[in-house]
Amino acid sequence: MPKNAFYAQSGGVTSVINASAAGVIETARKHPDKIGKLYAGRNGIIGALTENLIDTSQESEANIAALKHTPSGAFGSCRYKLKGLEENKAEYERLIEVFKAHDIGYFFYNGGGDSQDTSHKVSQMGESLGYPITCIGVPKTIDNDLPITDNCPGFGSVAKYVAVSTREAAFDVASMALTSTKVFVLEVMGRHAGWIAAAAGLAAEFDGDAPQIILFPEVTFDQEKFLTRVKQSVDNQGYCVIVVSEGVKNAEGRFLAESGRKDAFGHAQLGGVAPVIAQLVNTELGYKYHYAVSDYLQRAARHIASKTDVEQAYAVGKAAVELALEGKNAVMPTIVRTADEPYRWEVGFAQLADVANVEKTLPPDYLSDDGFGISDKCRRYLSPLIEGEDYPPYTNGLPAYVRLKNAPVAKKTGSDFKVK
Amino acid sequence: MPKNAFYAQSGGVTSVINASAAGVIETARKHPDKIGKLYAGRNGIIGALTENLIDTSQESEANIAALKHTPSGAFGSCRYKLKGLEENKAEYERLIEVFKAHDIGYFFYNGGGDSQDTSHKVSQMGESLGYPITCIGVPKTIDNDLPITDNCPGFGSVAKYVAVSTREAAFDVASMALTSTKVFVLEVMGRHAGWIAAAAGLAAEFDGDAPQIILFPEVTFDQEKFLTRVKQSVDNQGYCVIVVSEGVKNAEGRFLAESGRKDAFGHAQLGGVAPVIAQLVNTELGYKYHYAVSDYLQRAARHIASKTDVEQAYAVGKAAVELALEGKNAVMPTIVRTADEPYRWEVGFAQLADVANVEKTLPPDYLSDDGFGISDKCRRYLSPLIEGEDYPPYTNGLPAYVRLKNAPVAKKTGSDFKVK
Repeated sequence: MPKNAFYAQSGGVTSVINASAAGVIETARKHPDKIGKLYAGRNGIIGALTENLIDTSQESEANIAALKHTPSGAFGSCRYKLKGLEENKAEYERLIEVFKAHDIGYFFYNGGGDSQDTSHKVSQMGESLGYPITCIGVPKTIDNDLPITDNCPGFGSVAKYVAVSTREAAFDVASMALTSTKVFVLEVMGRHAGWIAAAAGLAAEFDGDAPQIILFPEVTFDQEKFLTRVKQSVDNQGYCVIVVSEGVKNAEGRFLAESGRKDAFGHAQLGGVAPVIAQLVNTELGYKYHYAVSDYLQRAARHIASKTDVEQAYAVGKAAVELALEGKNAVMPTIVRTADEPYRWEVGFAQLADVANVEKTLPPDYLSDDGFGISDKCRRYLSPLIEGEDYPPYTNGLPAYVRLKNAPVAKKTGSDFKVK
Repeated sequence: MPKNAFYAQSGGVTSVINASAAGVIETARKHPDKIGKLYAGRNGIIGALTENLIDTSQESEANIAALKHTPSGAFGSCRYKLKGLEENKAEYERLIEVFKAHDIGYFFYNGGGDSQDTSHKVSQMGESLGYPITCIGVPKTIDNDLPITDNCPGFGSVAKYVAVSTREAAFDVASMALTSTKVFVLEVMGRHAGWIAAAAGLAAEFDGDAPQIILFPEVTFDQEKFLTRVKQSVDNQGYCVIVVSEGVKNAEGRFLAESGRKDAFGHAQLGGVAPVIAQLVNTELGYKYHYAVSDYLQRAARHIASKTDVEQAYAVGKAAVELALEGKNAVMPTIVRTADEPYRWEVGFAQLADVANVEKTLPPDYLSDDGFGISDKCRRYLSPLIEGEDYPPYTNGLPAYVRLKNAPVAKKTGSDFKVK
């Protein structure tokens, strides 16, 4: 009898993580001689710890195919990082208990940096606790901050959303600027790395185009230089579009979003760097403003996903299973760029030990000289990642996203486990 | 020699107002025997007052056709309302001076309630000041608050954006809810009328689906009832998606967005009802939240425009010219719904005197009994308006929106006019 497999989704979801799930499931189904059932964890690793497994074999081929155009995590995700083996041995012993009970020999974990760390720890557990398990990470993160891989599935689609939205909002504010809004601020995700903010730079077609200012987490906020630049843009273009990463910090290293704003009750105000920037511009320069906070919309926007991203997300899922079947262990498929123009890529792989807990921020030469925009080098890197559209089917004017049955697998361990 | 025509865009722009412009221009071009040049006002009526006219005959057919897929106001818009003829006669005399100088016999004004009021005043001016001018309003507003017309071009696309975004964000938060975000708040436009917020209700497919709560400007905010409902939703569905209109008011009639929040400098905080709602939920119920403010993104999102909306926007532009050529004056084309299922519509017209300064809010029977959602009747009304996709062409992964030459018309009056 072939061993069963475990697959789970972890961390913040994306508009294409389910395409990776489809890649894993469809590829596993092609090898019934080597992989038995494919169980998904309900809410990531927590599903394994609490023995809440989903039997994916009960889903139709059509529904699994529909995952390719459905955003979010079809099996539920979690924000939960396994501690080191020494610190919390009980969790690892519980994983083994569950995996043994369900005859699981493959572990596929789909997530970002923390999740690759989890995958790595599970692979170490396999060795040190004497339970052999083939452990493959599947890369996913909108933040594009994983090392080694040229880019991360999930990023291309949020990049496309941000670039498209920036261009559209710029057209709007340009229309309104004479008598109304002169400054538009768009807040995007990226607490530590400015990749998403950088993608807004793709919206610009000609010199002077929006976004006139991008504020990156990698560049310390300089209020005076910033305000000078806003005024220049309004003087020259008639308006100014600012894209700000949630992770922008001031010279004291504090997030701008937390810089002293309090509500009427004296609570520190949570989140929202866009209103801070907008109000600063209004107070100091007097311009009328609008601001948008795209938040979950940006990472859930499957309706405007990048075709390149969807294909890569599927490819890493497929490759994860193929690597496992080739006998690889403790690795993660990667995207390898083989050419810029025309863009060419293939799938490679990296050791989980080299991936876990390493964060890739924007290289300095990806920024323009003044630090308010992106360089040509950055543009060459980003541009192919948003290439192509891959529209979902629509019913009644709305995207027809699939909801799986998510049939539970009967519990076998006979014991409960409380997740902290 | 046929008279020339004047066309201008007014008020907040939409993702399809340029489709109306294309309808006006392409139709005018088909009647060179009756309409000479079509001049566009640079920035709406201000372009007429300051004699800043654009010669649309210099734009290629391809560029005018591309307006059908380009959001924003291609000629610039304005927020500027003409006063009554008695209050500011100088403005009307200036309009006549400019219209006479450029031999303008047709006035097409593309906007919402205020703009229809302007169109109406210009038509009155024609009579009272002895300068005959054919005056046709072209309806446009994302707010869907014009009377008589079944719906307003511009609304269907923002409705589609909001419904799609709500569904996508709901899938996201459902994935995350177990260990992370339980409440997601989406702020949408609509200061006086809840049509846009109502459109979010289309995202729900089955009972219990998101959005679990919609907050309308037409329904006084009841904090206790609201919090009870949030808790119910989290208890039953595991999460809660709230769509809130910027115009929601408390029992004292004050906008929630202004309800006592001050920044660190003691300034009243401008805008942003989503963070107010999110923080209320967090303070009172302790749930982790995320919020998005879609702002200009919602009305500029041509990439996800409703096909129905694009067609109707074009149709009212075309009809405006045809009505003028039929000898109608002081009217506005309207959308007349002739059947719900399958949806059928045709173009009619209304008198500007009946349209100006009337605001259509959500009828009470469009709300669910508890006031937190939409009724089936509302759903039947809204559903066809978001029907169909009409994707723009893409280049390098981004929508190829057109920028016109906007060649100026040589000034002839020899006098300046200062707009207040």
